[in-house]
Amino acid sequence: MKFDVLTLFPEMINQACSHSIVARGIESGLISVNALNPRDYTKDKHKKVDDTPYGGGAGMVLMCQPYFDCFDSVEKTEDTEVIILSPQGKAFNQQMSIELAKKSHIILICGHYEGFDERIKQYTKAREVSIGDFVLTGGELPAMCIIDSVSRNIDGFLGKIDSAHFDSFSDGLLEYPQYTKPREYGGYSVPEVLLTGNHQEIALWRRKQQFITTYKKRRDLFDKFAKNCNNKVDLKLLNEVISEFK
Amino acid sequence: MKFDVLTLFPEMINQACSHSIVARGIESGLISVNALNPRDYTKDKHKKVDDTPYGGGAGMVLMCQPYFDCFDSVEKTEDTEVIILSPQGKAFNQQMSIELAKKSHIILICGHYEGFDERIKQYTKAREVSIGDFVLTGGELPAMCIIDSVSRNIDGFLGKIDSAHFDSFSDGLLEYPQYTKPREYGGYSVPEVLLTGNHQEIALWRRKQQFITTYKKRRDLFDKFAKNCNNKVDLKLLNEVISEFK
Repeated sequence: MKFDVLTLFPEMINQACSHSIVARGIESGLISVNALNPRDYTKDKHKKVDDTPYGGGAGMVLMCQPYFDCFDSVEKTEDTEVIILSPQGKAFNQQMSIELAKKSHIILICGHYEGFDERIKQYTKAREVSIGDFVLTGGELPAMCIIDSVSRNIDGFLGKIDSAHFDSFSDGLLEYPQYTKPREYGGYSVPEVLLTGNHQEIALWRRKQQFITTYKKRRDLFDKFAKNCNNKVDLKLLNEVISEFK
Repeated sequence: MKFDVLTLFPEMINQACSHSIVARGIESGLISVNALNPRDYTKDKHKKVDDTPYGGGAGMVLMCQPYFDCFDSVEKTEDTEVIILSPQGKAFNQQMSIELAKKSHIILICGHYEGFDERIKQYTKAREVSIGDFVLTGGELPAMCIIDSVSRNIDGFLGKIDSAHFDSFSDGLLEYPQYTKPREYGGYSVPEVLLTGNHQEIALWRRKQQFITTYKKRRDLFDKFAKNCNNKVDLKLLNEVISEFK
């Protein structure tokens, strides 16, 4: 998977990619991340990338020319997905991440401080994607979130690099609580069942805890799961949780 | 505002804070960001911070002791807000960001690769916060998103550092499209109304574009706004948009 990131702050991307699982993905050759700066493509002698908005108003607007030319410099294939980070976009989620992980090339276009000239969206035919209903200074952090999340969903990525412990959302439910040594710490104990060695009981307890956690914290996900559930063991546990906590 | 970040990758936080608006906020003294590494607090001679899960299963679980002690080392006040980054948490949004910006001290606890021993959540009484329904390798990117977003909402922050152009969500609506020079580029034109100099017409056009954009991209936000709207001009525009696009 090749990621090309159009950003006025390539350093932010390069530094963030020098850590952790993304760095190891790059080393292993499974992914590559290339940061391109539209400022390097400006034809203005002062390397200007923004100008005042037509119609007036505060702030500056990112100009077409540097972004058009920077975008044109990236080689594309039929499988290229173009994403513009924008609070107006469709919410990024695990499902979108899994779909994007099937692509071979993703271009991520980041704004910074300012909005884009609307024509940049038209020209690049980019899909607008948001990581949530909050305003950030730039698209760099969202782009990094997408690179991290999508990489994790590439076939063989985690298997080769790290184990996939963190499985919230993997079947639309939140995770069960985890405990490690020691059994007692600071007055807090590990639930007895986890110490029994009885694998079946532990599996049942964990499944029920998943339902409890999801019921308490994310009723929307719980309801969605319950609606489509036709596994007998799950249904029994679901009904226990509903009657215990309603 | 003081941010303390508990992370096994303090470099990620420090590097990300060396850029852009967060760096300028730190320079100006309006915010401080301090990254603490639980690994520095471990009593294990191999500086171990994780161990296998009780009850079995893949992956490792972050241990109580390094996190308890690292957390204890941070001086707290009555105004301290403790947040643990977790996909199980309440979704971070602009409203939460505005509320958090009123605090004077926020502790952000990041996991990495692995889940936390559940007792870490109990001991720190942390509020679980998620930036979205997707799985990331660690809490560092979400923590940076929160630092960036919350900083922008601190009274006087943007005024002192940068203009707040980007106002999506400021009244629950998405932004109107922006354009800058030149009038024509690559076959795309700036809408005529923005070139008229008629401020009233421009304001009306922009307001209607906000409604159109929100209607097309985020029907949920549009409906919420429409339900509570009692401004006559807005209501007229809202009805125009509904009849034109339904």
